[in-house]
Amino acid sequence: MKKEEWNKVEEHLKTWTLEAAQLLKDSFENTLTITYKSHIADLVTDMDKSIEKFFINKIQNTFPIHKVLGEEGYGDQVQDKSGIIWIIDPIDGTTNFIHQQSNFAISIGIYENGEGKMGLIYDVGGSNLYFAKKGEGAYLNEKKLPCLQEVTLSEAVIGVNATWAGPNRRVNHENVQNIVRNSRGTRSYGSAAIELAYVASGKLDAYMTMRLSPWDFAAGLILLNEVGGVVTRTDGQPVQLLEQNSILAAKPGLHRELVDHLTE
Amino acid sequence: MKKEEWNKVEEHLKTWTLEAAQLLKDSFENTLTITYKSHIADLVTDMDKSIEKFFINKIQNTFPIHKVLGEEGYGDQVQDKSGIIWIIDPIDGTTNFIHQQSNFAISIGIYENGEGKMGLIYDVGGSNLYFAKKGEGAYLNEKKLPCLQEVTLSEAVIGVNATWAGPNRRVNHENVQNIVRNSRGTRSYGSAAIELAYVASGKLDAYMTMRLSPWDFAAGLILLNEVGGVVTRTDGQPVQLLEQNSILAAKPGLHRELVDHLTE
Repeated sequence: MKKEEWNKVEEHLKTWTLEAAQLLKDSFENTLTITYKSHIADLVTDMDKSIEKFFINKIQNTFPIHKVLGEEGYGDQVQDKSGIIWIIDPIDGTTNFIHQQSNFAISIGIYENGEGKMGLIYDVGGSNLYFAKKGEGAYLNEKKLPCLQEVTLSEAVIGVNATWAGPNRRVNHENVQNIVRNSRGTRSYGSAAIELAYVASGKLDAYMTMRLSPWDFAAGLILLNEVGGVVTRTDGQPVQLLEQNSILAAKPGLHRELVDHLTE
Repeated sequence: MKKEEWNKVEEHLKTWTLEAAQLLKDSFENTLTITYKSHIADLVTDMDKSIEKFFINKIQNTFPIHKVLGEEGYGDQVQDKSGIIWIIDPIDGTTNFIHQQSNFAISIGIYENGEGKMGLIYDVGGSNLYFAKKGEGAYLNEKKLPCLQEVTLSEAVIGVNATWAGPNRRVNHENVQNIVRNSRGTRSYGSAAIELAYVASGKLDAYMTMRLSPWDFAAGLILLNEVGGVVTRTDGQPVQLLEQNSILAAKPGLHRELVDHLTE
């Protein structure tokens, strides 16, 4: 796609996001309809669904040949990476949306033939817009984010949930405990998109989790790529865009150290 | 102390806090001088020290018979709970202050003969002021916080750091793992004052940690008391104001359930 068309995409992407964010803020006044997905902790609200539909309508009307892959499943059946795909999480951090009315985000990554072109994470509660365009850097509210510098684990603050420090089916929890013990500290915010944006902006030095879907990480990958962050699966293997992956995003240097711990 | 005098205390407390917050925000532009306390993760900056001195100066000039107990040790040698004691943490969450310039707080609790009278937690980055006066309720930015309702663990979001889900000297980590596994989710923000304020305002259903000093919890206790939150040590015993304590703050009902898990 040509540069002028990407500029049009950028303009619409930002406008629609701010409109969607306003709908989310307005919804705080109302009573949410909450349903459960596969697990009691896997909540979904009517707002997740309506915001996804909001974006899909806009995209289909404005860019009819683009495809949409959305968390709530109202988009296209995306089988391969060809063409332009918008990968959308209307509310990343639904539990926070319900419990806190903060620490949740709209996350949108746009890919062309599998290559990340444009990523946006909007922390609605904090009104913080993280945005990146391939080759043009990443921004937080119009301010360019600097390249990430190397750091060691003992100086690092790591985003990791307590779940992974206890026995679980996806990772050797003793390896995670070693990371927790040897870091400067750990944090957990309950929104992968926000945690990836925090790594991109240096608020966290790394973030790791054992299972994310494409809409959870699509935008974050593009942001991190622009600031020199390293993102792989937790075993160091490449992330597969259209699959569930474990994710390890970190500053250079630290990423190697964390993979070594996780593959011990 | 009489009501009029407390009103004067409230007025000064709020004014000084906003002044101190501005000094902290201004400091983001400068290079911080960072030193270490006992442990590499135990950071202290020149701003911790100067903000504590700022408050002590103001208090000594305005309320000369009041005592001050501060994290950085510039206050009085407080041996007992008699009289009026300001318990001050100039920056709760110093690591966040350095790494994030957000998620840190000024925390001040004022006690009279051991009874919590006035508590203030100012989330400087988010400009959120949590304030409570004994018997008059708790407020977030002038908005009265509602009384906390009972909740069960499976519906609850718990503030607990991954440290406590791994082997440690202070708690049976398998009990903590059970709590993590049976909750709706866990979070960790790296500032006890903010996490206590989150429980008081319903953003978290509970918060637990294994070692806090008086300045970490002095304000939070007063806030929680005004909204019906329950705060004890993690074994269910009363918190000792002038000592280090483990802390378990929770909504009613949930508190009992968590103590049962922790004392199994």
